[in-house]
Amino acid sequence: MLFEQIFPVWNKLTAQEKETLRNTAFKRTAAKGRLMHNGASDCVGLILVCSGQLRAFISSDEGREITLYRLFAHDMCLFSASCMMRSIQFDVALEAEKDAELWIIPADIYKTVMEGSAAVANYTNELMASRFSEVMWLIEQIMWKSFDKRLAAFLLEESAVDGSEALKITHDRIAAHMGTAREVVTRMLRYFQSEGMVALTRGSVELIDRKRLNMLAK
Amino acid sequence: MLFEQIFPVWNKLTAQEKETLRNTAFKRTAAKGRLMHNGASDCVGLILVCSGQLRAFISSDEGREITLYRLFAHDMCLFSASCMMRSIQFDVALEAEKDAELWIIPADIYKTVMEGSAAVANYTNELMASRFSEVMWLIEQIMWKSFDKRLAAFLLEESAVDGSEALKITHDRIAAHMGTAREVVTRMLRYFQSEGMVALTRGSVELIDRKRLNMLAK
Repeated sequence: MLFEQIFPVWNKLTAQEKETLRNTAFKRTAAKGRLMHNGASDCVGLILVCSGQLRAFISSDEGREITLYRLFAHDMCLFSASCMMRSIQFDVALEAEKDAELWIIPADIYKTVMEGSAAVANYTNELMASRFSEVMWLIEQIMWKSFDKRLAAFLLEESAVDGSEALKITHDRIAAHMGTAREVVTRMLRYFQSEGMVALTRGSVELIDRKRLNMLAK
Repeated sequence: MLFEQIFPVWNKLTAQEKETLRNTAFKRTAAKGRLMHNGASDCVGLILVCSGQLRAFISSDEGREITLYRLFAHDMCLFSASCMMRSIQFDVALEAEKDAELWIIPADIYKTVMEGSAAVANYTNELMASRFSEVMWLIEQIMWKSFDKRLAAFLLEESAVDGSEALKITHDRIAAHMGTAREVVTRMLRYFQSEGMVALTRGSVELIDRKRLNMLAK
């Protein structure tokens, strides 16, 4: 994938900014399992995912981990370039979960472009807000774990009712059943899917790991 | 306090932007205990704190709360204007912990200025990154609670050694004792202070709530 096809606000850049980015960004591949970025100890630059899948996580001194979010094709990662913003005072590690192709933008280059371009700065804001939202969602899960349990229980119940592992049901319908917003259902189902508990296709939810769903629901 | 004295990047604004903000920002007071902003249900605008103290927190469906961070004089709050950015998909509530004087900037006005001004957009980025850092710190506390326990135990031990409630010790010295960075110590001590467990002055740490420190250390 060409750099200009994947950089998010390419059409809002000046000719000079395009030139600078094109001349400095470089392509890399990362094999499955490769640690791309390890907290504050390196500052590899901004990562644009062309293909594959990355996992962002934090880990404790004792080596316990928790996944913060995942990055797929067309996603960009700011925190692999945390040295570029002094207010980013936390360390996120990044690992390839599937073989990945990436563009890397050196941190100092992105910083310079961002400081001069309202479009790039505003895009960066939206990006940070998205990641922030994912982390806030995670905090709520950690603190109050209620909706995930409710949803797991609901899926098991529906499956028993239907006598089927593949539920023909929309996210809207589940939301209506559970008295919540469709977005909340979609987000949680995607999380279930990323954990291998369900498989999602248009208009259906297939239960894959009934044992884990049962444990969750309890 | 005049608006131009408290708006963070005033000198980097155009005359037009200054005019727009000056004509639309307005002053408010909030008495101690007043709920300023309640998640997504309102969008009061960006809050600039002139004096007093605000608390940002999230709460569960069952009414349990957790404090995310505090805002003091000269701090700005983005999340009271979360409607201005579509990627902010979480709800933070805001409460006055002490009588407060505030400037409010309407969300749509700030959004328009930010979209046109790289300076304002970059400032907003740094602000969001700061809050993000505070929340990431909180996650680590929640998940792995290790350093707070260690620090509480250390302070109690020092107090026993000195036979005093007011420890003459610098953050640097504590860091050296505990094999960590000074910033980590400072951040945790400030947290202890905000929770009323210690009082900090230059070169000393006074133990205020020995009972809670003991509970924490265990």
